[in-house]
Amino acid sequence: MAVRRYHCDFAYLGGNEAVADVAITVDGESISAVERGVVPASGDARLAGLTLPGFANAHSHAFHRVLRGRVERPGDFWSWRDEMYAVAAVLDPDLYRRLARAVYAEMVLAGYCAVGEFHYLHHAAGGRRYADPNEMGLALFDAARDAGIRLTLVDTCYLERAPGEPAEGVQERFSDGDVATWASRVEALTGSPPRGGARVGAAAHSLRAVPPSAAGEVAAWAGAHHVPFHVHVSEQPGENDAVVAAYDAPPVALLAAGGALGPATTAVHATHLGPEGARTLGASGTTVCMCPTTERALADGIGPAYTLAEEGSPIALGTDSHAVVDPFEEARALELDERLASGLRGRFSAAALLNAATAAGHRAIGWPEAGRLESGAPADLVTVALSSVRLAGAARGTLLEHVVFAAGAPDVTDVVVSGRHVVAEGRHLLIEDVASDLGRVIDDVVRAAGNG
Amino acid sequence: MAVRRYHCDFAYLGGNEAVADVAITVDGESISAVERGVVPASGDARLAGLTLPGFANAHSHAFHRVLRGRVERPGDFWSWRDEMYAVAAVLDPDLYRRLARAVYAEMVLAGYCAVGEFHYLHHAAGGRRYADPNEMGLALFDAARDAGIRLTLVDTCYLERAPGEPAEGVQERFSDGDVATWASRVEALTGSPPRGGARVGAAAHSLRAVPPSAAGEVAAWAGAHHVPFHVHVSEQPGENDAVVAAYDAPPVALLAAGGALGPATTAVHATHLGPEGARTLGASGTTVCMCPTTERALADGIGPAYTLAEEGSPIALGTDSHAVVDPFEEARALELDERLASGLRGRFSAAALLNAATAAGHRAIGWPEAGRLESGAPADLVTVALSSVRLAGAARGTLLEHVVFAAGAPDVTDVVVSGRHVVAEGRHLLIEDVASDLGRVIDDVVRAAGNG
Repeated sequence: MAVRRYHCDFAYLGGNEAVADVAITVDGESISAVERGVVPASGDARLAGLTLPGFANAHSHAFHRVLRGRVERPGDFWSWRDEMYAVAAVLDPDLYRRLARAVYAEMVLAGYCAVGEFHYLHHAAGGRRYADPNEMGLALFDAARDAGIRLTLVDTCYLERAPGEPAEGVQERFSDGDVATWASRVEALTGSPPRGGARVGAAAHSLRAVPPSAAGEVAAWAGAHHVPFHVHVSEQPGENDAVVAAYDAPPVALLAAGGALGPATTAVHATHLGPEGARTLGASGTTVCMCPTTERALADGIGPAYTLAEEGSPIALGTDSHAVVDPFEEARALELDERLASGLRGRFSAAALLNAATAAGHRAIGWPEAGRLESGAPADLVTVALSSVRLAGAARGTLLEHVVFAAGAPDVTDVVVSGRHVVAEGRHLLIEDVASDLGRVIDDVVRAAGNG
Repeated sequence: MAVRRYHCDFAYLGGNEAVADVAITVDGESISAVERGVVPASGDARLAGLTLPGFANAHSHAFHRVLRGRVERPGDFWSWRDEMYAVAAVLDPDLYRRLARAVYAEMVLAGYCAVGEFHYLHHAAGGRRYADPNEMGLALFDAARDAGIRLTLVDTCYLERAPGEPAEGVQERFSDGDVATWASRVEALTGSPPRGGARVGAAAHSLRAVPPSAAGEVAAWAGAHHVPFHVHVSEQPGENDAVVAAYDAPPVALLAAGGALGPATTAVHATHLGPEGARTLGASGTTVCMCPTTERALADGIGPAYTLAEEGSPIALGTDSHAVVDPFEEARALELDERLASGLRGRFSAAALLNAATAAGHRAIGWPEAGRLESGAPADLVTVALSSVRLAGAARGTLLEHVVFAAGAPDVTDVVVSGRHVVAEGRHLLIEDVASDLGRVIDDVVRAAGNG
């Protein structure tokens, strides 16, 4: 790729305010220069509005997107899970690739430049291995490459239905049987040159589905391979109860005892923690990935985001079930739900929310160099138009607040990912009609699941 | 206006599902026929996507729109109120009219066909009367007419800073001094032919600002004039505390004792009620107008919407502070916040949420004939495109759920208000550039307030 200079009306370069007239030079996949207060030059590509660093979606289950709008009937988290399993049961590598490609394209349109896919749909029905046992993961590599998003495949170890009970039904597709078998499969991925620049991470699904000792082994494997380690933690009270009943301690304490916490670890959700759990996560420097739009949709509850941040945990954000794919709504929900729980406003500043959605999220999924507009970083640029009626009245001094609290995915006009211009004028440049493709593959999945 | 027939790909005619191929004939301001399963005829105006009844915004303070994005710093409800008062202090009839016109236009673009303006900014600085003491209210009539929205001017009685303490500072602009003076001013409005088809309602601001006996008098006045009565109830714990300290009972009990509750009354917010308060409101048939996006933005908390509905209160919805102007987001927030509070999903169906946002809201602001697609109703049609990536995968059987849970104001393409086509292809037909007009008037207000 050649050198190209973008002229941004406004750009966010850190701190608490946006800067006017910023020139960003992109050389290949990286930013080579950032200049402030620059007059546009002929030959510059103009980015009108406010240009932000790329958003990172730190927790995704691509296939859950099928459920949007189809599961809004009475029930709880567990009845939702039954419907999710019905979708998981029918995906094969081709359908999975087509679905993930369209879902990732929806993400890029919304401003996400990288996604951490918490991937546990490894095997065929009954746990039968595909010819290449990584066929499902490789489908995700292809999907991300075709959609123009950077992927971290957070390859997830899943062993049990509940503590001491074997995986059953569709869960047989998730399980490698034991950690050693999981690890040797993942090593086949990390050993070969990564497809399309994707990276690999490791996860234990949860302590409901992976015994604490096994989770510790997965974390140790991640440490030895210098990749991130993720784990679902305390999303639901029922999950906590099952873990305490089996192992006499709540998930955070067990993870701490097993050496699975620390700056390379991301605890996903962390909704139902006691003060002790928040202190332990914070003190260890474990990142917490909140998924506020999913936690609201699934009736999980409001996690102690502010307490965790105060205790020392970086906060990242994920769209998880994709009930909503909108980094602005996800970011402001962190603060807005904190307001509902605390009665106080402004505990997370707009800048803190942006940091969670960009730099902290990228670091959590193994791209610590991304999520900031500075020389040497991957050239991820996300431009938000300021011309919509939602943003009318936006003032220079509070541009960040306007955009974080009132913008939405439809306001994103341009997205550059690793130097490649993937979205322009709100249209995906690699996929002609994302909505049609996504609709078609969802229809196919639903038909296969017999719900259509 | 002539007779015109619209052909809707899908329309919501009540019940739990949308209907395909609906023809709606509009004669003047009203619907004269609704036919199902009709082939499009030449001469029909086609409405692609899903056509819904008009949304009613049952609680609005138009001037709060200035604060969007400008108040996202640490604080609580009361510090936010200081900033709101700074804006209220500088509005004159001309500025108020320009601001409300643009804010109402933003509402129509989002699908609102009627708005209940909870209007208490009556007088000039220091409480000085304008030449016509209704000059500010008349400015709102003009604003609504120019924006193409139906208005109910909910003229609000405001008397005190706190129980027993006179209105002070900007509050002097709100106060008529006593109920009799308030009533004679409002009678000058209701006595003359309404401008632009607007209607009038009555309100007591709250029991913090109006003593219970006076609130009862306002309610009685409303009853005698057959107009709706509105009152802010228990938005904040501090408001409850002040009322209990002064009058030895919480707001709902005092309103009940004063005869101010019933099917013509709308209690706004009702966030901090005990079980007794919810029972009393429900048993009286009082409508509760929830404002979920505002209650989240202002850290008010989550009101007991489901309990109230179970006890017998119709639920209406309002955008209140206009942190968000989006009837879809407002409607789903009722259910989503209930999920956060209860841990259960699906307590309000998509149809129940739509009803709150349309028919119940219209009834609360004195348009009981509106909010449904049926012969004889005002011809309000709101069409939502199904082509966005947000709605990809929407299925015929769950179209309502998709639209209520995943659509947004940017998906609204057409809005017909009382037979007049006000929005087409997402553009306002009466105001060329709503966003620019709104931005300009907000700049003017902020400059006048000395914060610019």
